Order: sequence, then structure tokens, then C-alpha cells
Amino acid sequence: MTDPDLEARIRARIDGKTKPPGSLGRIEDLAERIARLQGSLTPRMRTCELTIFAADHGIAAEGISAYPQEVTGQMLGNFLAGGAASTVFAATLGIPVRVVDAGIAVDPPLVPRLLSRRIGPGTANFLREPAMTRSQLRHALQLGEVLGAEVDADAVAYGEMGIANTSSAALIAHRLTGLDLATLTGRGTGLDDDGLARKRAVLMAASARVPGGLNAKEALSQFGGFEIVMMAGAMIGAAKARRLILVDGFIATAAALAAAALSPGCRDAMVFAHVSAEAGHRPLLDHMGAEPLLSLGMRLGEGTGALMAWPMVRAAAAMLNDMASFDDAGVSGPA
Amino acid sequence: MTDPDLEARIRARIDGKTKPPGSLGRIEDLAERIARLQGSLTPRMRTCELTIFAADHGIAAEGISAYPQEVTGQMLGNFLAGGAASTVFAATLGIPVRVVDAGIAVDPPLVPRLLSRRIGPGTANFLREPAMTRSQLRHALQLGEVLGAEVDADAVAYGEMGIANTSSAALIAHRLTGLDLATLTGRGTGLDDDGLARKRAVLMAASARVPGGLNAKEALSQFGGFEIVMMAGAMIGAAKARRLILVDGFIATAAALAAAALSPGCRDAMVFAHVSAEAGHRPLLDHMGAEPLLSLGMRLGEGTGALMAWPMVRAAAAMLNDMASFDDAGVSGPA
Repeated sequence: MTDPDLEARIRARIDGKTKPPGSLGRIEDLAERIARLQGSLTPRMRTCELTIFAADHGIAAEGISAYPQEVTGQMLGNFLAGGAASTVFAATLGIPVRVVDAGIAVDPPLVPRLLSRRIGPGTANFLREPAMTRSQLRHALQLGEVLGAEVDADAVAYGEMGIANTSSAALIAHRLTGLDLATLTGRGTGLDDDGLARKRAVLMAASARVPGGLNAKEALSQFGGFEIVMMAGAMIGAAKARRLILVDGFIATAAALAAAALSPGCRDAMVFAHVSAEAGHRPLLDHMGAEPLLSLGMRLGEGTGALMAWPMVRAAAAMLNDMASFDDAGVSGPA
Repeated sequence: MTDPDLEARIRARIDGKTKPPGSLGRIEDLAERIARLQGSLTPRMRTCELTIFAADHGIAAEGISAYPQEVTGQMLGNFLAGGAASTVFAATLGIPVRVVDAGIAVDPPLVPRLLSRRIGPGTANFLREPAMTRSQLRHALQLGEVLGAEVDADAVAYGEMGIANTSSAALIAHRLTGLDLATLTGRGTGLDDDGLARKRAVLMAASARVPGGLNAKEALSQFGGFEIVMMAGAMIGAAKARRLILVDGFIATAAALAAAALSPGCRDAMVFAHVSAEAGHRPLLDHMGAEPLLSLGMRLGEGTGALMAWPMVRAAAAMLNDMASFDDAGVSGPA
């Protein structure tokens, strides 16, 4: 931001609009964020694009998900056919969708609309060994950064799909924040009590395999998923291009945590859209000082929460651009 | 609803979609509501219309608002010019807007797009006498019912404008629910502590003028505003036509309370969109057993909160209509 007065001018512009000061609540906060990000009193916020990153996880072999691994690839087809929740939601909002194979376990469907950015056929089982090599990590981050930079959209929403990826997200979050691993470990797609206990035991053991402090790259290569790493890279690329980033649920927030650790400036571009019903999400958001816009009890990922916040972002920008001031409209101020 | 199995079939349809059961949280609840309202597994939810009801209040003479009464009429012009928050928000969502003069104090602007449904030049001062006659009440309810019935929209959002109308809403809510009047009395557009104390004293005195129990019609004629009564009528008309009603903030919720008292069936058509930062709104919603979808800290009215919930309603219907089932998409269920 080159203009030292911009902050004050943004606030004055918002307060001059035909409404009592502060009466649009978080829409006003959003408007400030957007104006600051773009360094403009009349920010452009017309287009949003959803990118869904899919990948598989070796840890799924430990039986810590309610669904079998084949679902990742099947859902990839469902995204491309427009039949999944997030693609259906995106259609109602006029938001185009990109689907990225970051490394699912099986051969991906041969369809031209699928973006193939495969790092490998799923990660290794991080209970026994690092999920990915440092070279795979670098590659995933780089490909992600290009995906984040190259879109033509004012805002980006990122979704993910990958059976067992709440496990990966929980470990990344645990190792980067120090929050209790059991607190961060939830039921994912719907584990019962036994399944949850098993998942916690597996994740404790996996974490114990790697003692000591880990930086973001170490945590990602030890416990990451290709989709999580690539999403983190995309967030970095999008933030550098000053696009607003709509952060989805628990897994996307783990990616955001890593992205902010790798490239601190990108935190300013992030809007936390929705607090998931997945148990670890609220504590992780609290740790990051992030107050989500929405709380709709969803826990699906795929970008569904991020998408639902887009109309608020548009409204915030439209307030700055299109709403009349008291002067413009000849409306009286307080008595 | 003629089909006794519909309820079970709605639930089965939602649970058959390609997502873990329950993972879309309140979007699933909304989908159930919409399907039930229309008696259909494939409900139509494509169009929404916003109607803003504006009127003035005799009680404004007691100095219980932060803004002068002339603002009501000025804002009416601002709505028609598309420069107000709600009209700007509506434009981002492609939602058409009707603006109704239900009885502002001054001569209304002579513009063809304004719907003139004037009951009078503002209500009487309810500190001294009933706000309106029984004949005015009947007239306002009837005109409202027609406005609610005659639109061609799957859903309706109702907004209001009227300096001092949180006072009217607080008294209606107090007398129909028995909730503490001081709790229901908030800062409106921005009273300071002295102003709030004065407002509370005026409303206590106004309530004391009319001892005994009041039914909905009595409460509305004693303390109502023309915009509140007309909105209640519109809700009744919309519900009879099985349109979904997006209920806005504190004042709209007081109208919803009255509408549900006058025509109990219309509660089923109501979705409570947003909990306002106006102090009385949350207790009133709790009393009604209503859990709002959004909490964005807004306190502007005009339909701003109702509008922000429309994308979720659309998403819920799209889930029912357009999302693939596990069978359709060849996606595996739980392991």
C-alpha cells in the first residue's frame, strides 16, 4: 500500500454511505479488507473462481475414514459432471470451476476439462514414512502457485477432496500451532466413536514418528497431502496477485496456516468463510485469530463454505462502489 | 401437504446425494423446509423479490431516534434510485425491488416506480393514543396481503424503512410475547446511553397507556407502524401462495410474529435470515424458536439481512434438484 492515508479514506468512504455508521457490521469489515488489498476506494470484485484440488492419502490404509479411498477418484468425475455439492452451489452463483488432479491413487478419468497436476499416485503412509519427498513438496507448491496466479478472477475459492485428508490437516495444524492433537482430530466424513478413537491413536503414533519442532515445509512433507500443499501454493500465488482468497473448511484452513507461514503477506488476502462442524476447525480458527463469516453447520469441504461467502464479498465491494453517500442522495445525518 | 410419505421421501432424497449424511448442515434443513413448503422433491427456487415498506411514526416526535423523521422520505428516494444498501445488495444478486409508500409523513416523490399504498401521513403518537384506527389496520393488512400474493417470485424478502420503527417493533413484540420491554428496546440507528434511557422511558409509558392483554390486531393498532402492519399482511399473502419468506431483522421479525399470530400457517413459510445487532432481536428470535441463518452484525434493516440469505436458499434447492445421487454418479458409500 503506497498511500498512507488510504486507511482513513476507506473508513471515511464507508461512513459517508447512507446508513448509520457501523450498521452493516461485518460487511463493512469486509469492504475495508477488500479496499486495502486492492489499494483502492473502488475495488473490483466481480468475478470469483473455484478450484478444487483432489488427491489421495497413504494414511487411508489405516482405516481412519468412513469412506473407501476409491471415492476420491469417483468424486473427481462427479465434480467434472457438475453433480457434486460444490459444483451445484457454484452454478447457482455463476462461479466457474476448475478441477485439479494433484495426485489421486488411481488413473484419473481421461477428460479434457480435468487439470492434471499429478505429483504421484497419492502420498505415502505417514504413519511409517514422510508423506512426500522434498522434491514433491517443491513441485506441488510451484504448480499451486501458478494455478493461483494464472486465473482471471478478483477472488478465488479453494476446495479439496481426498479421503483421509482431515487426518493430514489435523497433523499439519497440530505441528504448526501446538494445539492438542486430540482436539484437532474429528470425525471427518462421519466416523463413529470407535473409528474416532482409532483415528486419534493412529495420528498420535504418526506424530510421534517425527519428534522435535517442524517448520511449515517439514510439516507439509511429513504429513501433507498433495491437494493441501498445492492449495497452499495456490493461496500464495493468488495473494501475490492481490486476489481475495475465500478460505473454506478445516482442510483449507490447514493449507492457509501453512501458506501464511511460508509467505506471511498472504494472510491479508484471506477471508475465512465458514466454520465447519469438523471438531478441529473452530480451535484452529481461534488460534489464527480468524473469525469466520458463516456458521452453517456444514462439514463437506469441496469449497462449499467458501462459495457461500462470495455474495457477502460482492455486497461489500458493491457498498463501496455503488451505494450513495449522504451528500449524493440528499439524506440527512443524525439529528 | 397431501402426501403422508413426503417427509420421508424428502429425507431419503437428501441422504442419497453424494455427500456424507448431514454434511451440508443447515443447507439440508433449508432444503427440507423448501420441499415441504412446495410439497415437492424438486422444488422451484429460482426467483426472489425484495419489497421495501416505508412509513413514518408519530412516536418519532418524542425524540427516540438518532435520525430526524425526514430521513424516511429521503431514503425512499434513495431506494428508488438504487443507492441504498439493500438495493445495492439486491442488484448484486439479480433481485428486483419494489418500494412501497405505506404512509410516510411528507408528500411522497412523484415517480411512477413508487407503489403508493398510503394509509396516512404517518401513524399517530402512540404515547398518547392508538397508532392507527381499526379501519387503517384492516386496510394495511389487506393491501399487504395483495402485495404478498401478487408477485411472481418463488421467494420474497421484505425490508422496511421508518424512523422510530424499532420502538414500534419493541412494543408489539413486548405485548405479544411478554418479553421484558427494556430487553427488547435497543439503540436503533445509534442512540447513545441517554437516548436509550429516554427511549425506554417513553416506551414504558406508552405501554402503560394500554393495560391488559392484547391480541395481535390490538397490539398492531395500538403500537404498529403502517409498514410493519403491511409487511405482516404481505407475509400472510405470500405464505398462502406458498412462497418462501426471508425474514429480515428486528422490525421484520415483529411483523413475522404478528403475521404468525394472525395466520398460524404462515410460520412454515418463514426463514429467519439474519440476527441483527439490535439488542431485542436475539431474545425475540429465541422466543419464537427461530434460529437465524446468518449473524453478520448488521443492524440496518431495509431487507439487507434477508437478501444475504437468498444464496443459501438457492443452494438448498439446487442440492435437491441438481446434485447427483450416489447411484447416479457411481460413487461408493461408507466402507
